Amino acid sequence: MMSLKELGELGIIRILESILGSSARTAIGFGDDVSAVKLGSGKVAVLKTDMLVGSTDVPLGMTFRQAARKAVVANVSDLAAKGVRPLAGLVALGLPANMAKRDLHGLAFGLRDGEREYGFPLVGGDTNESQDLTISIALFAIAEHKRLVLRDGAKIGDIVAVTGAFGSTSAGLKSLLDKKKRPRQLPTPLYKAVFMPRAQLKLGVKLADSGALTASIDSSDGLAWSFHELCQASRVGMRIDEVPIDRAAKNFALLYNYDATELALYGGEEYHLVVTVKPNKFDLARRIADGKMWQIGTVTERSEGITLKRNGNYVKIPRKGWEHFRRYA
Amino acid sequence: MMSLKELGELGIIRILESILGSSARTAIGFGDDVSAVKLGSGKVAVLKTDMLVGSTDVPLGMTFRQAARKAVVANVSDLAAKGVRPLAGLVALGLPANMAKRDLHGLAFGLRDGEREYGFPLVGGDTNESQDLTISIALFAIAEHKRLVLRDGAKIGDIVAVTGAFGSTSAGLKSLLDKKKRPRQLPTPLYKAVFMPRAQLKLGVKLADSGALTASIDSSDGLAWSFHELCQASRVGMRIDEVPIDRAAKNFALLYNYDATELALYGGEEYHLVVTVKPNKFDLARRIADGKMWQIGTVTERSEGITLKRNGNYVKIPRKGWEHFRRYA
Repeated sequence: MMSLKELGELGIIRILESILGSSARTAIGFGDDVSAVKLGSGKVAVLKTDMLVGSTDVPLGMTFRQAARKAVVANVSDLAAKGVRPLAGLVALGLPANMAKRDLHGLAFGLRDGEREYGFPLVGGDTNESQDLTISIALFAIAEHKRLVLRDGAKIGDIVAVTGAFGSTSAGLKSLLDKKKRPRQLPTPLYKAVFMPRAQLKLGVKLADSGALTASIDSSDGLAWSFHELCQASRVGMRIDEVPIDRAAKNFALLYNYDATELALYGGEEYHLVVTVKPNKFDLARRIADGKMWQIGTVTERSEGITLKRNGNYVKIPRKGWEHFRRYA
Repeated sequence: MMSLKELGELGIIRILESILGSSARTAIGFGDDVSAVKLGSGKVAVLKTDMLVGSTDVPLGMTFRQAARKAVVANVSDLAAKGVRPLAGLVALGLPANMAKRDLHGLAFGLRDGEREYGFPLVGGDTNESQDLTISIALFAIAEHKRLVLRDGAKIGDIVAVTGAFGSTSAGLKSLLDKKKRPRQLPTPLYKAVFMPRAQLKLGVKLADSGALTASIDSSDGLAWSFHELCQASRVGMRIDEVPIDRAAKNFALLYNYDATELALYGGEEYHLVVTVKPNKFDLARRIADGKMWQIGTVTERSEGITLKRNGNYVKIPRKGWEHFRRYA
């Protein structure tokens, strides 16, 4: 009998989707960064849940405070990609019985850090005993349906852009996992990327307000994975000319003989936005982003696939990324 | 350093509450069956999350389908107690990597059972790898703020009533846990109570609509615990004359020498409603409940405490019940 390990996260989601089905009330179901239900008058309730699990999502050396804050960031980032501010949230906790009281304090302060940074209250929750530390956040917002920037709106000729440079989370995690390559102290940019990631909420909302975007996704499953998700939903291809790589990630790659582009493409837990922009509104979008927007490529026909320029040629970008249940080297 | 085991679930919730604080947007925060945020014009978004954890919440012999359905029931029951229908839900899953594909199918069908029984769609979710099976549901609804039946409205002189007979879940669980007392097959009513519990959604909504209730709570943490929560929130006492005990629980108690009243008072995971009713509207409430409402006592002054008539005298009901992190015999 096949196990979930063989099925992989995508296979699991497909089974859930097919059995749970959809409803007339559903505005956005499984398969985008958030879900939404119709409220009438063109409004929708935006709903999001993302669970952080200690044994798989919390790297060595991360404090309870950082882990709880990161659980909030991961949820907010998905709303940011759609251009929506959270109104309120809930937190369901699974906590080991032998966890120390001071660690619970740390966890609660981390949740509060998240509330304050992104300006919404956690108004309730649930507490359970569990073998594995589990922080399950659910966010709620209200928005105009047509104002949400979904994954499926990219059009041929649109500009592909990102809101940050990539690779530092990958480099930081690799550095933590490989003892030989672990410096006594992680360089600050890598440390921040892994332990104190930030969601692009303000920027995501401003960009959605501008009307310049045609599609958007957050890059938390990896940059390459995000290209594939966006292209699949929009039924288009992408020609990527250049991937902006974080300077600290470049240094790490040089020092330890990694391919910096691979670090940037196949990482994960990096909370930038990957967007497609109407060509005549790209200047506006870049102005709004105040420098935090890099043009990296163009939306093409689906048949062209998803390619990256390397040594003068466009080569296919494989669909790899962070997927639970399956480990990519 | 104190561990969560010593702190107990109540202690944990107190720490979370005190650190997370409240917000001007909060209509109902921690400490009731559901949370709510203001939407303007007297409306609120009702939010609820409840997490089911395999190692502590799933009894021996429960299928994945039953466990997933129960996770939905536990969430719906809290909305039922407030008189609110869920509009939509999310499900975050923590799944062991070695779980079989057919068990995932079972789990998905259990979630669908829940959707269908209670008439709302699960519109999205999140999937994670976890050592412990975790099913975290979040529900969303919209309601008139003043229509919600909270825990804090009980008035002296109100009638205390319940919507079902108690003890069968307790009896069923004890029977499963104690091999000596485990019959080859659990009697049907005990089996149903443990493996296929039902939330009183229709009844809860009808009762809230009637305007007869002053306070309400679901009994999932145990009947005695519910009395204490309701009285604490309403700053009142309760004189309980009689606790309705399920016939199958009575038989089990007789057969295996248990105190049937204790089974009824100190169980848990039993999804009846415990309500207080305006005396002049009790007949109306009973008519609406179509027989599913038992008068069991009266709301008193706080100083009288919470007492139960046993052998002609009113004796204190201790605050015991199902609390994670602490085990009551």
